[in-house]
Amino acid sequence: MTDNDKVQVDACFSPYLYPVYRDSESIVVIIDIFRATSAICTAFEYGAEKIIPVATIEEARHYKEKGFLAGAERNAVQVDGFDFGNSPHSYMGDIVRGQTIAITTTNGTQAIEAAKDAYKVVIGSFLNITALCDWLLSEKRSILLLCSGWKNKFNLEDALFAGAVTEALSEYEPFRFGDACLALKYLYRMAKQDPIKFLNYSSHKERLARLNLKKDIKYCLTPDQTRVIPVLKDGALVRMEVGVGV
Amino acid sequence: MTDNDKVQVDACFSPYLYPVYRDSESIVVIIDIFRATSAICTAFEYGAEKIIPVATIEEARHYKEKGFLAGAERNAVQVDGFDFGNSPHSYMGDIVRGQTIAITTTNGTQAIEAAKDAYKVVIGSFLNITALCDWLLSEKRSILLLCSGWKNKFNLEDALFAGAVTEALSEYEPFRFGDACLALKYLYRMAKQDPIKFLNYSSHKERLARLNLKKDIKYCLTPDQTRVIPVLKDGALVRMEVGVGV
Repeated sequence: MTDNDKVQVDACFSPYLYPVYRDSESIVVIIDIFRATSAICTAFEYGAEKIIPVATIEEARHYKEKGFLAGAERNAVQVDGFDFGNSPHSYMGDIVRGQTIAITTTNGTQAIEAAKDAYKVVIGSFLNITALCDWLLSEKRSILLLCSGWKNKFNLEDALFAGAVTEALSEYEPFRFGDACLALKYLYRMAKQDPIKFLNYSSHKERLARLNLKKDIKYCLTPDQTRVIPVLKDGALVRMEVGVGV
Repeated sequence: MTDNDKVQVDACFSPYLYPVYRDSESIVVIIDIFRATSAICTAFEYGAEKIIPVATIEEARHYKEKGFLAGAERNAVQVDGFDFGNSPHSYMGDIVRGQTIAITTTNGTQAIEAAKDAYKVVIGSFLNITALCDWLLSEKRSILLLCSGWKNKFNLEDALFAGAVTEALSEYEPFRFGDACLALKYLYRMAKQDPIKFLNYSSHKERLARLNLKKDIKYCLTPDQTRVIPVLKDGALVRMEVGVGV
């Protein structure tokens, strides 16, 4: 297989930069490890039916007023008057089973909004990483790993996850990798023995530690808690399980 | 010294993303290792008086018609009818001594254009890295390492240089580092024993290798060939030497 026959895998470090990487043929993987995409994967694992990502608190409130469950987070804190923030632990248990939930977050839902017209938009986190990589491999289509970052700036934990996906895919022939993926693969290799220690000096880790969210951090870095891959369909996230088309 | 007393050092991977990092108080270091900022440092080392970075080929041609030397590069190739492309080797020797040169390149001059209103804009490359870091340390002011990338996408060689600067500054107390710098510092540590080998799979390295530019690649990765730090003043780059104000 020559390099020209291979499909491109690249990483983009900010929703703001997405227009530069936009390609209508690519699968876009949305990444917001601390904590939106981890929370979304958790909600589906616990039986949520549908998640509607919205960009503003007003839109989320609108859904809440119509009787839906609704989550809203800004600056790592749950907004008053909502059922959830973006802690994965709040989406565990019977409360989410069978429910449709509207969510708005500082970064993750903004990244979904930016990429909504892509060929396919899926949600990635360490919690579903193996299922995600199995599915990406089966699709053999170009991939953009879209890191949500923090207020459009690069962040370490999303980059680390993009590196983990690159590492997992790099042993397979159909893929060629952009420079960002090459850099992140090395980063992940350095960090994988102890990602919590590695992230110890990251900006968002400090932000979450101040908020006493160590339990969330540890959970969000735990691989393979679910086989569900949330996928965007008609403006809402629904469940896809590997091997089952949507 | 508490973290709040320290000055921020961060890295931005694309001129397109600069508005997110813009801060009128920061020094911006423009980075385009292959090859614009390496060529600019070389021209000053060989005695160039002034370099006028321009965004378009038309503007560069305008200067040429007025009797100035002019360089123009697009897609790593010298544009017909100009004195130079962006190979550092073409800026060596008596031809540049005492001259004012207009330059336009695919990436580097676009980054200068994006950041032109910053507190101070300087040119960084491996060729002047120690002089640059000495000066940054003496300024004790917030720093943005602005990677030119390739057509607004992340590239490995600019990231590597930003990592080298981070590594050099990280032993000094006045600085605290953003997530991007932390990631790049690790990348640089992994690469520094043999950066040419490390860059072997980067996209631009392949692009340059196809053009038979191995000599340029090796030179652009060679530290400390000059003590000059080019600095933007009234729209043109002029020389600053460490210890001498502008």
